[in-house]
Amino acid sequence: MGGDIGPQVVIEGASIARERLPDVKFLIFGDETKIAPLVTKYPILKDCCEIHHTDKFVSAEEKPGQALRRGRDSSMGLSIQAVKDGKARSAVSAGNTGALMAMSKFMLRTMPGIDRPALASLLPTSCGESVMLDLGANVECGANNLVQFAIMGAAFSRTVLGLATPSVALLNVGVEELKGNEIIKNADKMLRDANLPMDYVGFTEGHGLANGEVDVVVTDGFTGNVALKTAEGTARMIAGMLKSALSDSVFSKIGYLFAKPALMSLKNHLDPNNHNGAVFMGLNGLVIKSHGSASASGFASAIGVAADMASNDLAGKITKDLQRFEKHEGDEIEDKTI
Amino acid sequence: MGGDIGPQVVIEGASIARERLPDVKFLIFGDETKIAPLVTKYPILKDCCEIHHTDKFVSAEEKPGQALRRGRDSSMGLSIQAVKDGKARSAVSAGNTGALMAMSKFMLRTMPGIDRPALASLLPTSCGESVMLDLGANVECGANNLVQFAIMGAAFSRTVLGLATPSVALLNVGVEELKGNEIIKNADKMLRDANLPMDYVGFTEGHGLANGEVDVVVTDGFTGNVALKTAEGTARMIAGMLKSALSDSVFSKIGYLFAKPALMSLKNHLDPNNHNGAVFMGLNGLVIKSHGSASASGFASAIGVAADMASNDLAGKITKDLQRFEKHEGDEIEDKTI
Repeated sequence: MGGDIGPQVVIEGASIARERLPDVKFLIFGDETKIAPLVTKYPILKDCCEIHHTDKFVSAEEKPGQALRRGRDSSMGLSIQAVKDGKARSAVSAGNTGALMAMSKFMLRTMPGIDRPALASLLPTSCGESVMLDLGANVECGANNLVQFAIMGAAFSRTVLGLATPSVALLNVGVEELKGNEIIKNADKMLRDANLPMDYVGFTEGHGLANGEVDVVVTDGFTGNVALKTAEGTARMIAGMLKSALSDSVFSKIGYLFAKPALMSLKNHLDPNNHNGAVFMGLNGLVIKSHGSASASGFASAIGVAADMASNDLAGKITKDLQRFEKHEGDEIEDKTI
Repeated sequence: MGGDIGPQVVIEGASIARERLPDVKFLIFGDETKIAPLVTKYPILKDCCEIHHTDKFVSAEEKPGQALRRGRDSSMGLSIQAVKDGKARSAVSAGNTGALMAMSKFMLRTMPGIDRPALASLLPTSCGESVMLDLGANVECGANNLVQFAIMGAAFSRTVLGLATPSVALLNVGVEELKGNEIIKNADKMLRDANLPMDYVGFTEGHGLANGEVDVVVTDGFTGNVALKTAEGTARMIAGMLKSALSDSVFSKIGYLFAKPALMSLKNHLDPNNHNGAVFMGLNGLVIKSHGSASASGFASAIGVAADMASNDLAGKITKDLQRFEKHEGDEIEDKTI
């Protein structure tokens, strides 16, 4: 029931995802009177959808606390409950981000070894895609949190991008070891010393995001949220200026017609719909957030991320790496004691 | 002696600035054997340059602490000293940022009422230019620092952009009052309550930077540095992709030829050289940092910012607003005591 447009995008998105993933099945939570007619519009959805009716839904304006108190039997709450009960392998929602985060955290709880979940997503870079986290789940983070985010981000990259040893960096104001605050310097030290299935490269700067210098960019939720929105805003500003520049005169209109196929492929690479699907990482269950303004094809991308994560044992990878990190930290302490 | 290319850019930049500003005069500090031949290359510089020779200069790799210890008689140190002694109204350097910041702070000290200086600059937006600060002088900031940055940023905007009542916002992860950490919430409260010559609008998000939603964006040096570099990196990525898309095929090359004038005007607006000149605000003296990779025309922009600031009494504006803020805070406390 979420997103700027509501069920139409979700159901059409499901139909596109089903074409790409013939084994996928859907439990759909929400107002049956709105959903059932939409499902019948897409024959491909005929045998793979189960509609679970509820009148209640979490609105875009609702505060996380409110949603927690009265949202358990809303469409959002019931979809998370289905994950908790093992009836669904993942929940995908285009609804209220704060409410989804709060309810997911409360109902699914964090995985053993993870203190706080993080919001992670793929971002387009000049040479492909990178994972960035945290995008806004935690405005304040300690060094331990950043280390856990690095482990989760590397597991994301191994699962969705198929990289065996992704390169990982901490976002900082410079690449020299003495830059940044104490938290980031401590996290840097912990990651350098640990023996994890990632290529930890140290610090990266804001430039590194778009360059695609590393596969995984780790930061606190405040900086990550600002950086993500700054990148999106800058891309949108340039696209808008380019559009008006190319319709400025007869000459530039002719130029646009000739260059259109090339410009469309660029637009396609930068289109947030093609990188849609942010993951709440570190919970006992998978929850994927689709952009509220995503198109049907964008919602299908988010379902694709959910399917990738669910079928490639993301949680198992994270647990294994956490144990490896903790064992190493334990050895370190033992070494020092001796 | 600083910057990626050295004196050539600085002297050519001075000649361009002199064309724009016929009253400007230069004290040039550095290696006379390199500088004198360059100055004679530009006849316009003949009667407005005084070369002060020194063998010493601060290298790009030097740590701020090192520069402080041994850089007092370097070209950088001597130029700051000239500001301190009242021989120059502003110092402009393309050299090592950390060293310039440390030496400026140590030699000029912060203005009364300012706890920490901030690095501020103009950024291109979809509707013109905005001021952002802090861009990296302070990785950790309290609410008081953010309030002082807001006052300094508004004075910057009034001086350089000529706005009587600039709109000012704090950069945050959301626009609702309950978003963000305690520091930013306290700064928001203090700015709301104060009666300053600015239109304080509350929070803005990363999108707001490129949108040009507000005239002045205030943030801590960590977030500001990451946001600035993310915006620059994103713009460079898109420009690179656009360039390769437009040389992709014969058709797109033809398209490029037709659209070239329009694309050049867009490139011009986004070119960092046209927005060059970051200001160390809050010191007893003006110091302007030019990008290390700035062109001669970019260096001239930085000199232009210096001249604007010097001739429009930036420091006086800041002092007046600080007094107004402190008087208001004093009244508040008195009100509460009664």
